[in-house]
Amino acid sequence: MTTAVVAIGGNAILRKGQTPTMENQLGNLKETCRYISAMVASGYDITLSHGNGPQVGDILLQNEAARDQVPPMPLDVCVAESQGLVGYLFQQALTEELAALCCERIVPCVLTRVLVEEHDPAFSSPTKPIGPYYSAEEARRLMGEKGWAMGEDLSRGGWRRVVPSPRPVAIIEAASISRLVHSGDDLVIAGGGGGIPVVRRNGRMEGVEAVVDKDLASACLAKCMGVEELIMLTDVDGAYLDHGTPGERLLGSVSADEAERYLEEGHFPPGSMGPKVEAGIAFVRSGGRRAVITRPELLHTALSSKAGTQIRDR
Amino acid sequence: MTTAVVAIGGNAILRKGQTPTMENQLGNLKETCRYISAMVASGYDITLSHGNGPQVGDILLQNEAARDQVPPMPLDVCVAESQGLVGYLFQQALTEELAALCCERIVPCVLTRVLVEEHDPAFSSPTKPIGPYYSAEEARRLMGEKGWAMGEDLSRGGWRRVVPSPRPVAIIEAASISRLVHSGDDLVIAGGGGGIPVVRRNGRMEGVEAVVDKDLASACLAKCMGVEELIMLTDVDGAYLDHGTPGERLLGSVSADEAERYLEEGHFPPGSMGPKVEAGIAFVRSGGRRAVITRPELLHTALSSKAGTQIRDR
Repeated sequence: MTTAVVAIGGNAILRKGQTPTMENQLGNLKETCRYISAMVASGYDITLSHGNGPQVGDILLQNEAARDQVPPMPLDVCVAESQGLVGYLFQQALTEELAALCCERIVPCVLTRVLVEEHDPAFSSPTKPIGPYYSAEEARRLMGEKGWAMGEDLSRGGWRRVVPSPRPVAIIEAASISRLVHSGDDLVIAGGGGGIPVVRRNGRMEGVEAVVDKDLASACLAKCMGVEELIMLTDVDGAYLDHGTPGERLLGSVSADEAERYLEEGHFPPGSMGPKVEAGIAFVRSGGRRAVITRPELLHTALSSKAGTQIRDR
Repeated sequence: MTTAVVAIGGNAILRKGQTPTMENQLGNLKETCRYISAMVASGYDITLSHGNGPQVGDILLQNEAARDQVPPMPLDVCVAESQGLVGYLFQQALTEELAALCCERIVPCVLTRVLVEEHDPAFSSPTKPIGPYYSAEEARRLMGEKGWAMGEDLSRGGWRRVVPSPRPVAIIEAASISRLVHSGDDLVIAGGGGGIPVVRRNGRMEGVEAVVDKDLASACLAKCMGVEELIMLTDVDGAYLDHGTPGERLLGSVSADEAERYLEEGHFPPGSMGPKVEAGIAFVRSGGRRAVITRPELLHTALSSKAGTQIRDR
């Protein structure tokens, strides 16, 4: 048995331009779960994490739309709700695809809190846009009323709330998740949306309005659990050098040091491939055997090191 | 160590007339968690379940309010979201109150699906009102458009959707929850809102738009896990005979047979005390040592059999 954390990108749940109905999301998940189930059948003990961008965005929008009738929940609570939403759909999809391979597993989803530092520099410079688009006038009102930081998205011509994206320090429920995975009977879903961010303040655990990068949180979970591999599934074959230029080429097998050099040279866009490469480096440096970046369709080939980007410690 | 499932009523989360802000809900939960933490410190291994009525109602209302922008989620998905919402607040409250007693536990929350029978008679006669109130005209539209069953609530003068309330047959994640509890390190939150109801259909697990009674689901969880005690916390001292009459009296220690006789005689109102007594009877008949019904403030006294209603097999 090999142990792994598999992080699933948001497009495994909802594709660009798709209407976010339950049926569309469940359908996409089933497709991805076919590949995951094959990985389980081939002898992997897996913990699954996932993105939640569009889902938490919709929950924030629903909160806003009903704000005269129901007090809107803060962002940390909305992230918890999105873990329930996506986690449940994932359970249903996985249960079905595992059964199709006669691969009996329970698929519990564990709500996951992620510890961040109260004094993380991200708190003084929020950068991560979330939730609905607003007009300049609404944005002014919200900045005044709620003290939100807002940024203009020039590509879409609207304003959005921006929140801090602090670094993950620990996964509060990591030991519980490990217990389930080590039983060999459970395929656990955890760390959804990068986890619900909490800080320790005066000896208490307090939720904060922030969003932790899903891949960095998955690397943190993988490290806390001591698993062997971190697999990041997205919508491209792997990480590319000189991405978007005529000379672009897929990065195959690299050491953490090489990957770091490319990262520093600016080959990987921040907010998409950047955090994945960073997560991969952090994971292998903390003792992980390898990190893989690829698309679900190539998962099987990538596991035998014949596709995707593979980061190893040496 | 004694093992128990503790089921917390909705008023432990939100009191009648309170605005459903995060702060109010977290404050109420902390109060209840003080009693739960003392129970843990006194030597109990606990699984906590909870109601979700007002929370899932608010989520349904938010879904309706934003329906022109985001496709509303079906009821099973909304229940999953409410497990995330309440589960997270519960985790935070419990972590704090346990720490105050120097009682170190991880408090994982496991999303919980509850299996119901596809042919449960409840599906042909929906009775459980959920979500927002509608005018007669809106009710007509929704019955036509969505095929909802709706009922008029004469006390409030509006129409509400009514959904089936089938009986719980099994808890899908029971073995995983047991694994965590048996470690002795985890205090697990599970079975929120009676669980997310699913049926087996053509070999697949499908979510259904229904609501399972929280106390019956807790009894089912307690039975599946093989725990010794089922404790149901609510806003009265215990079950009353001749409730609401000048001759009303608290029911103390009874056998399951006695309790059943009182239940059949109509002493306990359906939808409130009825299901609790029924859940208690089912639990002790399935091998449980005792079921207790009381309020959080009396928990300590009730555990030494000096308060509350106690149902035993003989």
